[in-house]
Amino acid sequence: MAPLLISSPQNPRIKRLMSLQQRSQQRRSEHRIVVEGARELQHCINAGFTIETVFYCPTLFDIEKLQIADFETVEVTPQVYDKIAYRGSTEGVIAIVEPRFMSLSDIDLGDDPLIVVLEGVEKPGNIGAVLRSADAAQATAVVVCDPLTDLYNPNLIRSSLGAIFTVPCVACSSLECIKFLKENNIKILTAQLQDSELYYHTPMRGATAIVMGTESTGLTQVWREAATAHIRIPMRGELDSLNVSVSAAILLFEAVRQRE
Amino acid sequence: MAPLLISSPQNPRIKRLMSLQQRSQQRRSEHRIVVEGARELQHCINAGFTIETVFYCPTLFDIEKLQIADFETVEVTPQVYDKIAYRGSTEGVIAIVEPRFMSLSDIDLGDDPLIVVLEGVEKPGNIGAVLRSADAAQATAVVVCDPLTDLYNPNLIRSSLGAIFTVPCVACSSLECIKFLKENNIKILTAQLQDSELYYHTPMRGATAIVMGTESTGLTQVWREAATAHIRIPMRGELDSLNVSVSAAILLFEAVRQRE
Repeated sequence: MAPLLISSPQNPRIKRLMSLQQRSQQRRSEHRIVVEGARELQHCINAGFTIETVFYCPTLFDIEKLQIADFETVEVTPQVYDKIAYRGSTEGVIAIVEPRFMSLSDIDLGDDPLIVVLEGVEKPGNIGAVLRSADAAQATAVVVCDPLTDLYNPNLIRSSLGAIFTVPCVACSSLECIKFLKENNIKILTAQLQDSELYYHTPMRGATAIVMGTESTGLTQVWREAATAHIRIPMRGELDSLNVSVSAAILLFEAVRQRE
Repeated sequence: MAPLLISSPQNPRIKRLMSLQQRSQQRRSEHRIVVEGARELQHCINAGFTIETVFYCPTLFDIEKLQIADFETVEVTPQVYDKIAYRGSTEGVIAIVEPRFMSLSDIDLGDDPLIVVLEGVEKPGNIGAVLRSADAAQATAVVVCDPLTDLYNPNLIRSSLGAIFTVPCVACSSLECIKFLKENNIKILTAQLQDSELYYHTPMRGATAIVMGTESTGLTQVWREAATAHIRIPMRGELDSLNVSVSAAILLFEAVRQRE
């Protein structure tokens, strides 16, 4: 039997794919997400997610490269792919996937967990970039508090290069997160400029959470008060802030260095 | 005399502004660049650049806020501003400025310079993000070797948040840069995964250059051979690379830590 080939952007299955891609409400109600790109999809498969359908353009992507057997494949023409590809991607593969949502109690803390907490970070691209660094530093988990985006926003998946599938990631409220950290004796290091010590003077061995807020307004009072220590990255130049994903990387790798 | 007010996007001065914004060839031939945003423009003014014309939308921007007297101002209507604003900026101010181009010999090396070298980095946004971290770490200079973008690309200025005006920045060839570093006894630390030591085991006191290539192909052989040491950031997860601006920040702040 010849594989299904879709050549019209008006095809109902293409319309559904695009709706899932563009609308978080649609993702929620259908309990499905969209994963685009060969690496991203392979990380998703490796992590054991259930793949519903893989749409691919045979002139751009070799479906045999995906290391998994059990899913439906649909071929699309280059014209259809061009329509569904996000931000000019040319990798030729997009899948509909069943999401998984972790809660704090699902985190495997192991020995000396290293957790990144982001409070109120708005841009999906920044959360994705933090996940990418968290993967490299082998952080235990990333917790997104009071999120303003869903964790499977296409921008977030893309900027994480698939790290959203390799790093345990939880969305919850700040109060839930603080309770969880305290109950598990995880020290809370809040990144803030005021009343703080230089981050490299702060011990990061043992169970540690590094907590960051937005670039513009920083952390809320509830986090500042919950902190074991306030830490800062020295700002020696004329600008007054670093990108949150850059700050996260600097702090995470200082923890890696101290823990070696 | 009432200030000049432009209410048509077809006005020749608006057309010239947009052409300068969009075309590097136009910037080169006119020797003019476009700086958008209140902070960016203030950093540019503070650095002593010559400002030709400031276009602003009075409902969005208070021209009195700019701390300088000597330039021409032009008011534009919200409709015109909306047309000229880059990527949905709502700050209400855009200026035409005379650029400055530094060469290697213009760098004030001082004691123990800390230089960031980027080879072949394509995305202006990445170079801008590196400049932002270089400002925070008070790096001596950023050298962009064999650039694929001009240093005053609007994306680069924007992502640097104005650090392109606060950090000395030079564009040159890799061979020129290597010659310069060797002549000035600046040690060359190349970031590469193969044949390398962990960056935090590498001394970064004394005159140091941290050299990074692209995420996809890394550094060319000429840099690997010129290196004093090869350094790497440990990649402990499943992904195989970090964003170049994230890597730069991690390495720069390790130098800051060691030098304190």
